[in-house]
Amino acid sequence: MTSVSSATPEIELLRSRFPYLGEKAYFNYGGQGPMPRSAITAIIDAQDYIQKAGPFSGAVNGWLSQEASQTRSAIAQELGTTPDTITLTEDVSVGCNIALWGMDWQPGDQILMTDCEHQGIIAAVRELQRRFELDVSICPLLNTLNSGDPVSTIQQHLTPKTRLVVLSHILWNTGQVLPLAEIVKVCHEFSADQQIRVLVDAAQSVGVLPLNLTHLEADFYAFTGHKWWCGPAGVGGLYVRPEAQLNPTFIGWRSVITNAAGDPVSYQSDGRRYEIATSAVPLYAGLRSAIALHSQFAPAEERYRLLCDRSAYLWQRLTDLPNVTCLKTSPPEAGLISFQIDSGKHQSLVQFLEEKDCFVRTILNPNCIRACVHYFTTESEIDALIDLISYQLNQ
Amino acid sequence: MTSVSSATPEIELLRSRFPYLGEKAYFNYGGQGPMPRSAITAIIDAQDYIQKAGPFSGAVNGWLSQEASQTRSAIAQELGTTPDTITLTEDVSVGCNIALWGMDWQPGDQILMTDCEHQGIIAAVRELQRRFELDVSICPLLNTLNSGDPVSTIQQHLTPKTRLVVLSHILWNTGQVLPLAEIVKVCHEFSADQQIRVLVDAAQSVGVLPLNLTHLEADFYAFTGHKWWCGPAGVGGLYVRPEAQLNPTFIGWRSVITNAAGDPVSYQSDGRRYEIATSAVPLYAGLRSAIALHSQFAPAEERYRLLCDRSAYLWQRLTDLPNVTCLKTSPPEAGLISFQIDSGKHQSLVQFLEEKDCFVRTILNPNCIRACVHYFTTESEIDALIDLISYQLNQ
Repeated sequence: MTSVSSATPEIELLRSRFPYLGEKAYFNYGGQGPMPRSAITAIIDAQDYIQKAGPFSGAVNGWLSQEASQTRSAIAQELGTTPDTITLTEDVSVGCNIALWGMDWQPGDQILMTDCEHQGIIAAVRELQRRFELDVSICPLLNTLNSGDPVSTIQQHLTPKTRLVVLSHILWNTGQVLPLAEIVKVCHEFSADQQIRVLVDAAQSVGVLPLNLTHLEADFYAFTGHKWWCGPAGVGGLYVRPEAQLNPTFIGWRSVITNAAGDPVSYQSDGRRYEIATSAVPLYAGLRSAIALHSQFAPAEERYRLLCDRSAYLWQRLTDLPNVTCLKTSPPEAGLISFQIDSGKHQSLVQFLEEKDCFVRTILNPNCIRACVHYFTTESEIDALIDLISYQLNQ
Repeated sequence: MTSVSSATPEIELLRSRFPYLGEKAYFNYGGQGPMPRSAITAIIDAQDYIQKAGPFSGAVNGWLSQEASQTRSAIAQELGTTPDTITLTEDVSVGCNIALWGMDWQPGDQILMTDCEHQGIIAAVRELQRRFELDVSICPLLNTLNSGDPVSTIQQHLTPKTRLVVLSHILWNTGQVLPLAEIVKVCHEFSADQQIRVLVDAAQSVGVLPLNLTHLEADFYAFTGHKWWCGPAGVGGLYVRPEAQLNPTFIGWRSVITNAAGDPVSYQSDGRRYEIATSAVPLYAGLRSAIALHSQFAPAEERYRLLCDRSAYLWQRLTDLPNVTCLKTSPPEAGLISFQIDSGKHQSLVQFLEEKDCFVRTILNPNCIRACVHYFTTESEIDALIDLISYQLNQ
């Protein structure tokens, strides 16, 4: 069994800042992360300020604009980019849609998408295909989890008609970390006459991997604050690489600059051009508070190392169980661990676990259970999960 | 001067349920309404439940779905329609964009838009024009505020190419209430060979006018909860008339139905087809709580009568002031009252008033100040505004 140190006092202190986290064994970070108390308080305080100083007033309007600006900056800092490249969105899907609908599509253009994407983006790509007479090609990456090379698989599927590659940085179903920098390089260098853009569903990578989006060079990187960052649901973002052209699609007052008569005369020159209109701005303070909690705990590289350590421990313990098979045959490279039980009764096991305050989820394709560990997941939480699975499988 | 009764005990009780409302004279309901304490508490309680029972779990996922369903129902009840016609959105602009981008545009199709629309929707219509080679025609309604007939003005601007009319139910700049049912009738009956759809920006009408969307027959009616309903910023909705065809554009997991393998096989059959993905669901409980506060106070017709009574009082007092001109020459039909001061120094008056905890705003076209009264605005609030304006204009 992998050697894992017990939870340090620092980890225990961090965990104590999340209400209810001590009362459960939590493995659904890939669905939604718990919010630290400081983030909840920040949201309540922001709401109170708005009610007190407005809610609609010159003072509040200036403050809302500052809140958005500070939030873009906090995100940019974490992601290794500049604030002007960041658009605040409601969630990952909105970010993906902004990129998908903002390209200048021509009939016959091809989208290459992996076979491991989330249902929402699959449906969006199909609607684009129907509206603009596009060709959509599916690139088989599921089977590269344990062998094979995702970079060359993608490379082999690029054609002279390919204009966009759609993929996840970390596959939500198997937990595989794709070598994104290499994939982007292959796409960008495919042909001097052809711009192949890369749209990344970063739902599972932001808050997990140390990231430098400037160096990564992906064109569009859509993420959320409510999973691994442990911020509030309802705030995410989109990074748009300065070199990538994109038109705004859903447009509102936040997208535009107006003249003295209030007429919109141009789009904002930065990421605000893809923002739309009124949002739940009090949540922004909550997201910043959650991000600060992590960054004050340790640098991203150290958090990722801790997370991989815990992930390896869970993977090993699952692998050691009879009647359980991890999809990945070697320790995971991130926090998602997908496994199957011989009976195939995944939903009933998940329900049993939830009744015991132990939280995992099913995935339908491939048919499995997914457990997620964060850098502050403890050995005792993992042991509790393993014990419950063992107990249930022996019934 | 119009006779207005002093605030009743019922009004005073209602007002006491809004934190800070007693400390100011508030006239920016058209920008954002204050939230009642019950709505703030409902949001905090919902957030706490999610943290306790999840945040991601089978229990919470079922609860989130119920919350959304109950919110569509509460909205539908208020708007005289059925829950299946309601889509939950982030704001009015998202609702307008869903309708604008969901139509099956052909080059040369015409959009007819009034000259009183909000900058966000103007910019969205211009982007549609550019992308799909549409013709956009502007219909002059600003000058029908005091004379002229908006119905015949619109009718005269319809052409065999018109496919969509874009207008506000209540004009945000002048407060004019458009005779929407008659306008819809004129559009729908223009030609047997041509479907002219009507998209309504309902930012200023929902929570003000008694509404029956089924009888009104507008095709798309986009609204928000955070203005006259006094709900949280970040939740709005779109009504889509069952007869109006529309394709989803921004698409996510909420839009689709998946099969046993998790593959999206169709769109939801009701308003959820235009919803996207993760939202700040705790806010839904806040919106329902705010709506309930109003509906328990009095029926919509009675609230509208009260609001018009207060509006007439403010209009009369402004009209009586030297150096002040109300844009409307007769008492308003809703809660928005726009006026000009002879000096034209609107921004400095608004700033002076805000320093005295009296909240109004400027409008750039036409250049004016806008003050909004709700049904629970008091005579003493209005008197305070008038006194402050008089004081400042006499400096």
